[in-house]
Amino acid sequence: MKIGMSHGAGGEVMQDLISDIILSNIHNTRVNGGVGLEDLDDGASIPLGDYEIVISTDGHTIDPLFFPGGDIGRIAVAGTVNDISVMGARPLAIANAMIISEGFPGEDLERIIKSMDAVSRETGVSIVTGDTKVMEQGKLDRMVITTTGIGVVGRGETVRDSGLRPGDKIILTGSVGDHGMALMAFREGFGFDTDLESDVAPVWGIVEAALNVGGVTAMKDPTRGGIANALNEMADKSGVGMVLDEDSIPVREEVKAVSEMLGIDPYEVANEGKVIIGVDPEYAEDVLAAVRSAPYGEEARIIGEVTDDKHVILETSLGGRRILEAPVADPVPRVC
Amino acid sequence: MKIGMSHGAGGEVMQDLISDIILSNIHNTRVNGGVGLEDLDDGASIPLGDYEIVISTDGHTIDPLFFPGGDIGRIAVAGTVNDISVMGARPLAIANAMIISEGFPGEDLERIIKSMDAVSRETGVSIVTGDTKVMEQGKLDRMVITTTGIGVVGRGETVRDSGLRPGDKIILTGSVGDHGMALMAFREGFGFDTDLESDVAPVWGIVEAALNVGGVTAMKDPTRGGIANALNEMADKSGVGMVLDEDSIPVREEVKAVSEMLGIDPYEVANEGKVIIGVDPEYAEDVLAAVRSAPYGEEARIIGEVTDDKHVILETSLGGRRILEAPVADPVPRVC
Repeated sequence: MKIGMSHGAGGEVMQDLISDIILSNIHNTRVNGGVGLEDLDDGASIPLGDYEIVISTDGHTIDPLFFPGGDIGRIAVAGTVNDISVMGARPLAIANAMIISEGFPGEDLERIIKSMDAVSRETGVSIVTGDTKVMEQGKLDRMVITTTGIGVVGRGETVRDSGLRPGDKIILTGSVGDHGMALMAFREGFGFDTDLESDVAPVWGIVEAALNVGGVTAMKDPTRGGIANALNEMADKSGVGMVLDEDSIPVREEVKAVSEMLGIDPYEVANEGKVIIGVDPEYAEDVLAAVRSAPYGEEARIIGEVTDDKHVILETSLGGRRILEAPVADPVPRVC
Repeated sequence: MKIGMSHGAGGEVMQDLISDIILSNIHNTRVNGGVGLEDLDDGASIPLGDYEIVISTDGHTIDPLFFPGGDIGRIAVAGTVNDISVMGARPLAIANAMIISEGFPGEDLERIIKSMDAVSRETGVSIVTGDTKVMEQGKLDRMVITTTGIGVVGRGETVRDSGLRPGDKIILTGSVGDHGMALMAFREGFGFDTDLESDVAPVWGIVEAALNVGGVTAMKDPTRGGIANALNEMADKSGVGMVLDEDSIPVREEVKAVSEMLGIDPYEVANEGKVIIGVDPEYAEDVLAAVRSAPYGEEARIIGEVTDDKHVILETSLGGRRILEAPVADPVPRVC
């Protein structure tokens, strides 16, 4: 068996590779009863005294390195901040491991570092340690960055993908498909001329606002595989279904246009600054209001609710009703 | 300016790149007064309640992936365990981010994962989270692995490179140059026929034994740049010098032989299972005895002591005396 592109794509084929080769061969997968490897959540946790330390790691291989709305540096720090955030933990620190190809321009490296710095300052996290390696020319295309985040939350207070309960409301914090479509449009040569931009942004502000209200039962950031993947994963892990009002899922006009041109479903492509939040119905309106007043949360809305069915169902105002399936493999080239 | 191989090599050229581009552009570099980015220690720390969380990250680009004595999986987990250990912290967890080239053999991946598992079980650390990405064929030579470790130590009890004081004894836990020379010999075609093997091993057992005795003032694992780099870095950061008895620094016969054939100084190549420990002289003999009874510590010895000079001096029994300089750039191809 040889590793293929679909193995790193975040869909079902990827899950199979992870289960077959990785999970079946690793014995120590959690510490002190915290969230561990086989939970396949956005990160892991280590209970320690009154706290739970949350850890998440992500390798970034994005092409192009610079794109409308961001660059690999912004996505590396924001993406890791977001994985920590959706576990319910305050992001504290980032470890930054860069592998750079020989011949890579120093100015580009500086631009990327400045981008990382900007997100870290915006979010109040520190880049506390790192590692830099150089690979011989021809052995690596430009650069890859692996960021690992450390966050902290009160013991037993992590928010899990699996926490949804029937009756919970589902909040989506903004329009979907922006990151994935912006990257694909750029690759297809539409360049920086379109208004289409990646949504890459740190969501800790949104998450903190929601947690301060209370009633949050589950959170996930819909990156690889888009909301189609994230909503199904949350439903699966929670053993529930959802009924969602498709008209309330915002898709920008530019995203729709590119989506139609390329024949790619905007629900199946990555977002890099959005959160899906499951909330106890009693708290839903207050959480929504809090999220809407946080940065990057202005367009948040309730898109539906959790059912005791096992499917994620999309309904339209015209009476349409269809099952939203998780993508089998990433339908699109790597964009995050 | 373009990034060159020497920038990722661990010598002075590397320090300049880190300072110029990375450190000068990052503003938030530490959390709660812990060890931070510009300390350039083996990792960072985050004080939290009664504890200090220690974090270290390392990108692994080793060639070949499988070598006498180990493979990239063993080095990835052991190397990160070791960076956490020499900060004085008990390693708890590893985050494992793999970037794999399309077409990489599944059997090789499985062998590497099993190797990671073996070290994690030996050391009692868990692999709690990870990320797997696949890069298109031609964009990456086989695979890179970034491991990030999390450890824990009592607040204020981290052990730093900079803790040496004049009069401290220097303990070296075994022979030097084994990893670097084994890899270079293998690359030069001596293959698996020689007895020369990498020393790659987790050193937490050694470190725990030493810490249990007390009196440890500084620790470092002499990886990139070898003991020449590590001893000078410890002396520099501590503002001290050392006088070392060269005859007491063990170099295996096979390592000497390859070293002479290739014209490479065994003091300047990486070790992957050794520790340099600075100890208060009152505790030195007891720490030495404890280290010698720990796994991988059997050959430990006291190699000299700390002075208030600024140089690292090597003396021989025949009266020779020379300054051991840090390598300017890595004199050898990347071996870790």
